Amino acid sequence: MRTGGLEAFSDGVIAIIITIMVLELKVPHGTELAALQPLLPVFLSYVLSFVYIGIYWNNHHHMFHAAETLTGGILWANLHLLFWLSLVPFVTGWMGENHFAALPVAFYGLVLLMAGVAYSILARALACHHGRESKIARALGKDFKGWVSLVIYAGAILLSFVNPWIAFALYIGVALIWLVPDRRIEGVLAK
Amino acid sequence: MRTGGLEAFSDGVIAIIITIMVLELKVPHGTELAALQPLLPVFLSYVLSFVYIGIYWNNHHHMFHAAETLTGGILWANLHLLFWLSLVPFVTGWMGENHFAALPVAFYGLVLLMAGVAYSILARALACHHGRESKIARALGKDFKGWVSLVIYAGAILLSFVNPWIAFALYIGVALIWLVPDRRIEGVLAK
Amino acid sequence: MRTGGLEAFSDGVIAIIITIMVLELKVPHGTELAALQPLLPVFLSYVLSFVYIGIYWNNHHHMFHAAETLTGGILWANLHLLFWLSLVPFVTGWMGENHFAALPVAFYGLVLLMAGVAYSILARALACHHGRESKIARALGKDFKGWVSLVIYAGAILLSFVNPWIAFALYIGVALIWLVPDRRIEGVLAK
Amino acid sequence: MRTGGLEAFSDGVIAIIITIMVLELKVPHGTELAALQPLLPVFLSYVLSFVYIGIYWNNHHHMFHAAETLTGGILWANLHLLFWLSLVPFVTGWMGENHFAALPVAFYGLVLLMAGVAYSILARALACHHGRESKIARALGKDFKGWVSLVIYAGAILLSFVNPWIAFALYIGVALIWLVPDRRIEGVLAK
Repeated sequence: MRTGGLEAFSDGVIAIIITIMVLELKVPHGTELAALQPLLPVFLSYVLSFVYIGIYWNNHHHMFHAAETLTGGILWANLHLLFWLSLVPFVTGWMGENHFAALPVAFYGLVLLMAGVAYSILARALACHHGRESKIARALGKDFKGWVSLVIYAGAILLSFVNPWIAFALYIGVALIWLVPDRRIEGVLAK
Repeated sequence: MRTGGLEAFSDGVIAIIITIMVLELKVPHGTELAALQPLLPVFLSYVLSFVYIGIYWNNHHHMFHAAETLTGGILWANLHLLFWLSLVPFVTGWMGENHFAALPVAFYGLVLLMAGVAYSILARALACHHGRESKIARALGKDFKGWVSLVIYAGAILLSFVNPWIAFALYIGVALIWLVPDRRIEGVLAK
Repeated sequence: MRTGGLEAFSDGVIAIIITIMVLELKVPHGTELAALQPLLPVFLSYVLSFVYIGIYWNNHHHMFHAAETLTGGILWANLHLLFWLSLVPFVTGWMGENHFAALPVAFYGLVLLMAGVAYSILARALACHHGRESKIARALGKDFKGWVSLVIYAGAILLSFVNPWIAFALYIGVALIWLVPDRRIEGVLAK
Repeated sequence: MRTGGLEAFSDGVIAIIITIMVLELKVPHGTELAALQPLLPVFLSYVLSFVYIGIYWNNHHHMFHAAETLTGGILWANLHLLFWLSLVPFVTGWMGENHFAALPVAFYGLVLLMAGVAYSILARALACHHGRESKIARALGKDFKGWVSLVIYAGAILLSFVNPWIAFALYIGVALIWLVPDRRIEGVLAK
């Protein structure tokens, strides 16, 4: 099975996820600046989620660029990732509308954690299928950034009950780690 | 007529269906764990529908991979399938928000049944168009899994008035049957 | 300019239009059959609009298959068509939720009429650009079905103030005329 | 990195943005012409935004047609543009539902301004990456229309507090400037 159809479908789902999140930004009734104020936390969480979904699209795109063929298992590992990403609009809205209360912030981290785990499983399945000596396996290497992210997410979930803003800062931190495109893959592909 | 455009369009529609279902998961107002509790049945039915739409995408993708050309009739058989799939978000929301009451569970089964019938018609139309000796006709063979699914759906619809959870268990059962990618098609294509 | 990008974009917009219409089918609160009853007219108008958007996708796809290059004008003629099609979910919801009252039924016809006019303009622009002797110009020919549709729409708009069901029957009639794929184009392409 | 994947993803996001805007046109409850009257300003702002998103799709499409390869930076410059475009449905709804009050009209201009700035950054990044002598760099040239637009947006934002209709007229003016497809790029490409 070729990768083209799966990439097109995933691109479509990710494009829809990144765009329908904006529907949580409900049009306010007033026309003064004060009417926008309650939307500020929703907007803040929208920006963070937009960056995260952008990162996932970017890395997903890079990864399947290095892939050549698929199996049924990879296909379902990919749908598993899309499932967790599809919950991002929900937790984004919940976190934003409740002004970064502890539990919604923890759940936001939980969805990020599960998406990160799903991405790791997908990467592993792809590396496994293409063989240890394949471009994609060497490119993913030890997946250091992936593991660090999962640990930070887990820490942030716990810390959100101490102070949700610490958790929020950690989510921003992980996003910054990933904003740099995955040089491992780029490096190996360039060879 | 080539199959590329129809596949791209169907992929788009299926990607949108699988993603807008999450809009039924309305952001709750509270910030305690109790606020999420009424969402649990909605979430449960979301997971089931996500898996079903994933299965349809997967099988649809496999089937058109084996197809070569189209007719106007196949095109409308495909739109007929998309029509029933487009009703999945509606019955998913109705079933979830009513905590798996009898009638919504039966209607969920009815939409699955109709989608299954539409898929069978589409498969038959494709096999017919490509001829009895074609790859796709041999791949579909006797469509045993398809017929079993339709019988189970019909049974589940009736049983949902006895106990909706039996019907729900049957829907999960059919999903498990299909989670395995269609080896018939893979087998014939590999030859 | 090649036609591929415009086709992909149009396919995306049409796929979204056909799918978000289902969001007008609001999940009912009750769990008896009576709870579905007020949804019946919404469902009926959903089915009609689904068929219409399907017809437009089908014919649009056929037409651009026969096209080879584009101009800026054709691009905007295409966006003009997408604009009127984007209003279909709105008039579908308005007509359905008001149980086929006169004015909403007339507006539904108006949007169909404008979409039909936009399609004619687009077809003419394409035929003009490719030259009178081109495949696409010969395929479109005198556009008899197009003109008949416009006349019926106009008649239906007026008749909807006499009896909306006459108008509704005429809309179904036009859909039936078009359900047959455009043999003109198929015929010329096959040569 | 090739440009195909980024174009497909951007096309998807833009197609969704242009289509979900229509969801702000809430189906009215009455069935008289008076029921549509409060929707008129929403419809007006919808038309303007539809044209703007159409222009962005058109120019984006032209620009990436002239591009050959990408960098991670260009990818994020593109997501930055999509971010501002994703806010267009929100400001469109806010401006329309408040009958073109000063602040919403100013915010509409702010989002257009930021989208314009993001487009300029993206164009510059592409020109930079392909080199001063590249097709795309020569095509973009001094980007006169881009600079004029930014100045008019800035002026319109200020003038919206004097009279919002002046600002609205200026937004229409900028749209008219861009409705003409970018002859600079077409001209260079044709050589």
